[in-house]
Amino acid sequence: MQLGMIGLGRMGGNIVRRLMRHGHSTVVYDKDAKAVAGLAADGAVGSATLEDFISKLERPRTAWVMLPAGHITETTINTIAGVMQDGDVIIDGGNTFWQDDVRRGKALKERGIHYVDVGTSGGVWGLDRGYCMMIGGEKQVVDRLDPIFAALAPGAGDIPRTEGREGRDPRIEQGYIHAGPVGAGHFVKMIHNGIEYGLMQAYAEGFDILKNANIEALPADHRYDLDLADIAEVWRRGSVIPSWLLDLTSTALADSPQLAEYSGFVEDSGEGRWTVNAAIDEAVPAEVLTAALYTRFRSRREHTFAEKILSAMRAGFGGHKEPKQPGAAKPKQ
Amino acid sequence: MQLGMIGLGRMGGNIVRRLMRHGHSTVVYDKDAKAVAGLAADGAVGSATLEDFISKLERPRTAWVMLPAGHITETTINTIAGVMQDGDVIIDGGNTFWQDDVRRGKALKERGIHYVDVGTSGGVWGLDRGYCMMIGGEKQVVDRLDPIFAALAPGAGDIPRTEGREGRDPRIEQGYIHAGPVGAGHFVKMIHNGIEYGLMQAYAEGFDILKNANIEALPADHRYDLDLADIAEVWRRGSVIPSWLLDLTSTALADSPQLAEYSGFVEDSGEGRWTVNAAIDEAVPAEVLTAALYTRFRSRREHTFAEKILSAMRAGFGGHKEPKQPGAAKPKQ
Amino acid sequence: MQLGMIGLGRMGGNIVRRLMRHGHSTVVYDKDAKAVAGLAADGAVGSATLEDFISKLERPRTAWVMLPAGHITETTINTIAGVMQDGDVIIDGGNTFWQDDVRRGKALKERGIHYVDVGTSGGVWGLDRGYCMMIGGEKQVVDRLDPIFAALAPGAGDIPRTEGREGRDPRIEQGYIHAGPVGAGHFVKMIHNGIEYGLMQAYAEGFDILKNANIEALPADHRYDLDLADIAEVWRRGSVIPSWLLDLTSTALADSPQLAEYSGFVEDSGEGRWTVNAAIDEAVPAEVLTAALYTRFRSRREHTFAEKILSAMRAGFGGHKEPKQPGAAKPKQ
Amino acid sequence: MQLGMIGLGRMGGNIVRRLMRHGHSTVVYDKDAKAVAGLAADGAVGSATLEDFISKLERPRTAWVMLPAGHITETTINTIAGVMQDGDVIIDGGNTFWQDDVRRGKALKERGIHYVDVGTSGGVWGLDRGYCMMIGGEKQVVDRLDPIFAALAPGAGDIPRTEGREGRDPRIEQGYIHAGPVGAGHFVKMIHNGIEYGLMQAYAEGFDILKNANIEALPADHRYDLDLADIAEVWRRGSVIPSWLLDLTSTALADSPQLAEYSGFVEDSGEGRWTVNAAIDEAVPAEVLTAALYTRFRSRREHTFAEKILSAMRAGFGGHKEPKQPGAAKPKQ
Repeated sequence: MQLGMIGLGRMGGNIVRRLMRHGHSTVVYDKDAKAVAGLAADGAVGSATLEDFISKLERPRTAWVMLPAGHITETTINTIAGVMQDGDVIIDGGNTFWQDDVRRGKALKERGIHYVDVGTSGGVWGLDRGYCMMIGGEKQVVDRLDPIFAALAPGAGDIPRTEGREGRDPRIEQGYIHAGPVGAGHFVKMIHNGIEYGLMQAYAEGFDILKNANIEALPADHRYDLDLADIAEVWRRGSVIPSWLLDLTSTALADSPQLAEYSGFVEDSGEGRWTVNAAIDEAVPAEVLTAALYTRFRSRREHTFAEKILSAMRAGFGGHKEPKQPGAAKPKQ
Repeated sequence: MQLGMIGLGRMGGNIVRRLMRHGHSTVVYDKDAKAVAGLAADGAVGSATLEDFISKLERPRTAWVMLPAGHITETTINTIAGVMQDGDVIIDGGNTFWQDDVRRGKALKERGIHYVDVGTSGGVWGLDRGYCMMIGGEKQVVDRLDPIFAALAPGAGDIPRTEGREGRDPRIEQGYIHAGPVGAGHFVKMIHNGIEYGLMQAYAEGFDILKNANIEALPADHRYDLDLADIAEVWRRGSVIPSWLLDLTSTALADSPQLAEYSGFVEDSGEGRWTVNAAIDEAVPAEVLTAALYTRFRSRREHTFAEKILSAMRAGFGGHKEPKQPGAAKPKQ
Repeated sequence: MQLGMIGLGRMGGNIVRRLMRHGHSTVVYDKDAKAVAGLAADGAVGSATLEDFISKLERPRTAWVMLPAGHITETTINTIAGVMQDGDVIIDGGNTFWQDDVRRGKALKERGIHYVDVGTSGGVWGLDRGYCMMIGGEKQVVDRLDPIFAALAPGAGDIPRTEGREGRDPRIEQGYIHAGPVGAGHFVKMIHNGIEYGLMQAYAEGFDILKNANIEALPADHRYDLDLADIAEVWRRGSVIPSWLLDLTSTALADSPQLAEYSGFVEDSGEGRWTVNAAIDEAVPAEVLTAALYTRFRSRREHTFAEKILSAMRAGFGGHKEPKQPGAAKPKQ
Repeated sequence: MQLGMIGLGRMGGNIVRRLMRHGHSTVVYDKDAKAVAGLAADGAVGSATLEDFISKLERPRTAWVMLPAGHITETTINTIAGVMQDGDVIIDGGNTFWQDDVRRGKALKERGIHYVDVGTSGGVWGLDRGYCMMIGGEKQVVDRLDPIFAALAPGAGDIPRTEGREGRDPRIEQGYIHAGPVGAGHFVKMIHNGIEYGLMQAYAEGFDILKNANIEALPADHRYDLDLADIAEVWRRGSVIPSWLLDLTSTALADSPQLAEYSGFVEDSGEGRWTVNAAIDEAVPAEVLTAALYTRFRSRREHTFAEKILSAMRAGFGGHKEPKQPGAAKPKQ
């Protein structure tokens, strides 16, 4: 089956490679001609412009857009939609906000163009491991594209089967899901990332408490010097909390027990924020997912204005003078 | 009535002064002889040692200990208890952990010495405004000491009376409460401070959002340059959220709109921590009081180890490189 | 000065009454003819339809819309804008989302109609206490309407003046603020309500811990039966945490110590949610304001699906069977 | 090697069985004679009293106590310590609070008895999967007991090895760790459970948002009916968030999509609470681990007193009447 790919960054490029490994043909475009040439050397059909790209696709065309969410994705989709025809399909595989999918899907449908949103997880490991895909769109369109998704998915591999799933949609065990109509794919991917934030923060806090178990503010017989790398590793083996994120933590701590090379300024992508917005729209109390997001916000500031307000109040009612340097935690008396 | 005071810092000294203003006689001790001399000049009976102090008190003696909570309070109480007699009273007016009160009260009772714990609020303003007092101890002892508490309390003043309180304990409207047996005073004061943390943080976050309403990450027509000092002041007048803490905030912002002289490292005292511990012992979900405490913890660090763990995981699964400098928030796409 | 009011509910009706008390003339409309008749009896000019209402206003017209935020406000504004003329003013005094103000202000400006948004605090007490107002709009329009705002504002009263405010905008001390361009009024009011949620939750958690201080799960010598009504009252007097919200709490507890007549299902209005959304857009960590919102979400459910997921996991890894009835907290071992 | 086991519940019984499978000899005691008889039938040496139990152990004796943490563990250890001799070892494998270990370890050491604390994870699956063990105690004692731990540990199995661990303690990859001196085992296990709470809550909130994605309060084109069982399963395959907890969730949802048979009252054990206490003692902001604990607290109440306080305040300032029934979330306007 033929697929066109716009955007040959780490994700887009590897998706094309994995498709070709599975015998699919690809047409590729990127504003960076070198990226196009690189994939052409691997067997893809290169193209020099978006118009050229569209002209090289067989009808009904399938164009996968794999660009940073937002303005560039929006304008690219508008451009190719302008030259696409009835029955063609645009796939947005980026980190698009699901409500943008809904809006776009409606607008394109009026022009006979199908829209499919694919939330893709797997990161730098996807070329070999495959991509977990969460897909939104019309049933017959998603079904028609199945060979593409099947090739990109990780497959059942040696992951133990879950009991009680006999007779259910077999695509799930291959690692991809048609979650619902347009937008559902990115919606489910958004929640995936929201959960990811929460899981990461749970581990992070736990290791922070382990790390600080030897501070001087504690009574001498209540202090421990703990080997965090060993603890991360042992928890991978027979405990209740093994996970891929713990695997990564164990690797990182084995390599660098103090993690000194990490600045601690932690970025967030849109999904964590949108997850909280969705929780609020649904009136779901999402304390943990929200706290995980806020930790990242806080990590990127030297100080918040809120903290200065606190200091100002304390000076006001108690004459307290805050220290000018970060210091040992004030011990429990 | 006669009261002995050990510890002539800001709080202890002003309590003695306020008592003398109301015609009570005082005996004072501090390890700093100058502090003793200062109050002696104001009319107190000074003493040179703890033994001297005890010897100058009339029986049944009343000794108010106003020292930093913890070791020094503990040893001082043990010392004077060793020379006090049946029927004498020790008042701990410091920021003592209420479970220490319970333990001490029991031990002293076996020796016939009464123990009273007084949680005292009012800070630097108490000399003139009076002190809000939360008292724990045996009824007849607290009743006997009433002239002391009545003198220290702020009195009814011009604070509007609450409807429906006719016939209730008249001490409450004077600003002091016999909350219960030994420990109850510090328990109630602990919760007072826990609430204080939550209130402060609520205002602080609100002003932080106002402050950041003009950041570049926002769409141009969704940015506001707001005058925080004016907003704090206007909220004092007819809104739902006036409070003394807001008064202090308004004063601080009028004086220094950016609060640039505040470091933002915010200390915490034991009460905020103990409040959370109490919530946990009671299985009460105290999200806000706990979050307020954690904000202070976080404010005193350059970065947490938790944040480095997050960065390490992100590098592991996505090849993400975190920035080395704090920066503008990554905007919503 | 003349003002037209659409929407004669508790808020709109009392605003009209307060304006008339201050000598202003009013034209009023409500879909409920009785409400119109009631205010007409008090001296307002009644109107039978929106067209009638507009026709009775002198040019440049000033129409204050005081309706539930959302659809009804939107359609009403569209209707009157259709018959208003260059230079006329529409005031939205409801709980409108500030981004709707921005959108409307732009659309109306193209037609020469001015838009002013007024966040109004004061609730049922405003008729006599006055309303704290947060105003967004063009300077010359807000200035022209000053007599209206001055009449509605609480005035300086006997609230102590804040030091260091000499020479600043005198309107602030009267209880109203021109916060910025269109939308700024509702933005500031939104944050006011966000803070309100946080403050309320801080008190609420504190009283919850006090209330549960006598549960059986606690050691016998660590239990207290506390009088919450007395504690609320004593904190009003000389402590660090007096506020109007505490006044209300003290009144409520004096009247009903167990608060048994309250269901505990707590509603939220849009402002609390929008505050969190704003915090997220600005990347401000607003833990306390968010936790306060989530508590309300949770209060309205019998159980969350999240809790069932927890139970299902616990059954899965440990064979734990959750109880079918709510029960005493499992005590600390 | 010989091991004595006191407490033949699910955990203790299976530990004995696993040891015997690996060729170790065991002496067992339980107050329930049937439990003793059952294991005796499997090859263990039964005993009728604690004295009998001790008498059947070869010197230096090793007695593993596997009882509910708290009073019963304490008294049992005191009893057997009274008849044990210099060089004997007591292992506490239960969910003991690590500070109790420290206290006991000191007291026993004075009498020449060694104390080892073992935090054990693996639950009902441990007999076959093995137990992840976190061990605290003196080096030579833990080393001497190694055959026991090696038999109980899961072993390296087919879990992929972590890079960069060459030359490190080989026990870690077998699934057990000598974490440090007495108390360190339970300390690390405590944090393990604290993290577990956070991970569980992160998944739970995510599924809650997915579940409520179709509520009527949402705009019609922003609603999705999602298949949670399929989503849980697909995330096991190539996403960022696979884990054993997700495996369990997938199984539970496949079996019961609505989880209707779960009450939603979620218990907590001591470890989650102690984790938060430890965070506070170290001044580590542990927002997520704490929020996860508080969710469980809240789940066990019909309503909190805090919520009633909120309702009472709302009635006071706005005349709001809360509904008497739980209802649909009030939608965003």
